Amino acid sequence: MAVSLQSYLEEKTSFIEQHLTSLLEREGVPATLYESMAYSLMAGGKRLRPMLVLAVLEALDKPVERGIPYAAALEMIHTYSLIHDDLPAMDDDDLRRGKPTNHKVFGEATAILAGDALLTRAFGLIAERYLNDPDVKAETVVRLVAELGKRAGATGMVGGQMADIEGEGKQLSLAELEYIHKHKTGDLLIAALRGGGYLAEATEKQMDALTQYGRNIGLAFQIQDDILNVEGDSSQLGKAVGSDADRQKATYPALIGMDESKARLLQLVAEAKQVLRSAGMDHSALMPLADYVMERKK
Amino acid sequence: MAVSLQSYLEEKTSFIEQHLTSLLEREGVPATLYESMAYSLMAGGKRLRPMLVLAVLEALDKPVERGIPYAAALEMIHTYSLIHDDLPAMDDDDLRRGKPTNHKVFGEATAILAGDALLTRAFGLIAERYLNDPDVKAETVVRLVAELGKRAGATGMVGGQMADIEGEGKQLSLAELEYIHKHKTGDLLIAALRGGGYLAEATEKQMDALTQYGRNIGLAFQIQDDILNVEGDSSQLGKAVGSDADRQKATYPALIGMDESKARLLQLVAEAKQVLRSAGMDHSALMPLADYVMERKK
Repeated sequence: MAVSLQSYLEEKTSFIEQHLTSLLEREGVPATLYESMAYSLMAGGKRLRPMLVLAVLEALDKPVERGIPYAAALEMIHTYSLIHDDLPAMDDDDLRRGKPTNHKVFGEATAILAGDALLTRAFGLIAERYLNDPDVKAETVVRLVAELGKRAGATGMVGGQMADIEGEGKQLSLAELEYIHKHKTGDLLIAALRGGGYLAEATEKQMDALTQYGRNIGLAFQIQDDILNVEGDSSQLGKAVGSDADRQKATYPALIGMDESKARLLQLVAEAKQVLRSAGMDHSALMPLADYVMERKK
Repeated sequence: MAVSLQSYLEEKTSFIEQHLTSLLEREGVPATLYESMAYSLMAGGKRLRPMLVLAVLEALDKPVERGIPYAAALEMIHTYSLIHDDLPAMDDDDLRRGKPTNHKVFGEATAILAGDALLTRAFGLIAERYLNDPDVKAETVVRLVAELGKRAGATGMVGGQMADIEGEGKQLSLAELEYIHKHKTGDLLIAALRGGGYLAEATEKQMDALTQYGRNIGLAFQIQDDILNVEGDSSQLGKAVGSDADRQKATYPALIGMDESKARLLQLVAEAKQVLRSAGMDHSALMPLADYVMERKK
């Protein structure tokens, strides 16, 4: 990873995390519930979704501050999905990013409620924070909520997780595998990019480019995830390598082979960058972020 | 229950249920996920929250149709909370309204996801449906989302459920019991009334009255729930009578006695109606609905 991207990521991560804490309400929340929400929200991670929101604002020469509530909301939704996915009834994972999963620390009931509360807070904070922001029209806020509703729910992320669970132990086709990834991972990345686009008052052409870029890096992200699960370093990943194969999980390397998976990854990222260039957004951090999705080691 | 209220409730229930089905997206949703969401959403129930939204619009001489998306969203949030509360890790209930609970029919993983998806859809549909409604300002929509975020999340309903779970098997004070009920049940009723108020462009005085009315009937609702759990008819309730005592659950009858509980109930409902009278809203269905909360047998 280039030194400049590395320092960009570090700076932005620190900026995002500082706001994440302050946007999680504490007053009037039962102490254990707050701790459980904060535990997972502040457990690290790449902060990719918030990063993309801020990068879109930068790409369209708008102040990044405007993206903070929406960026935080996306990270809360991402975090809730991880908490629920890790539950015994779902993937039954004990470790996440090298730390015990939420239900291992707080118990299942609290983990379920912490997830529910993070999801609810995501929508609430968008409405609450933008309500009095003179730079963001009320209509834009409504569009952000609609975008999240569509991409995070039954037609998006939750639908993808459902298909993933139903597919376990079955022989999936490539089309079925792509359906899962498109929704489980891709949709929330697209929501980050399109939401950033709404906040930056992007043109229709820019919005289409952001959507296509999101679709490509979403799939690229998942392919790299599958590759890392075979070839990665478990100490960097914070989870066991080879776990997909152990569970007989459908993955790109398993379905189309490792070489073809890597070729597909390169192609998706190249296309994503080409789309940005065509829309005149190639001076922005969105370009190196596309490479990062492919080159990351964790 | 008066004949007129009975037929009012039946008419409104049928009106609400007809819209609930159509507001649940089906296209692009994995079949099992859709079935699980629809199973619980269409499993009957009093539809009290949607009913209150429509009654506020009527009380303020506005078309009830305007309340439909918000009313449906509230019922989706209420339904998701029941699905998650019934899970083995939470209350571990096998029956709800006389039918097997969601996880008993679809399994735990699907039940968790169906709850997540209903909660997400609630916010999404408000944004999506009101976006192009010329009678509802975008700012009003943002206020609805903020209201729901506050009342349904960690500072509201989810916080109440957390306190309820933490209180199990403990000797609670009356103040602790009221905290639980205020948030677990009361907050979503208040959200129904205040949301209806926003949609009807209520004055500040009317909004205060609706909030106070909601606070009172929320508590009254819960006291009647506790009373029914002692004196009710299990075939009408669709669940076992005496289950609170078996679980040594803190209830009003257990803490302050049955006579005092009934006196409290009467007082809360009388006050709720008095508040409506003072704000000039006593010609509406909100009046008999307050009695209904107290007189209901299930």
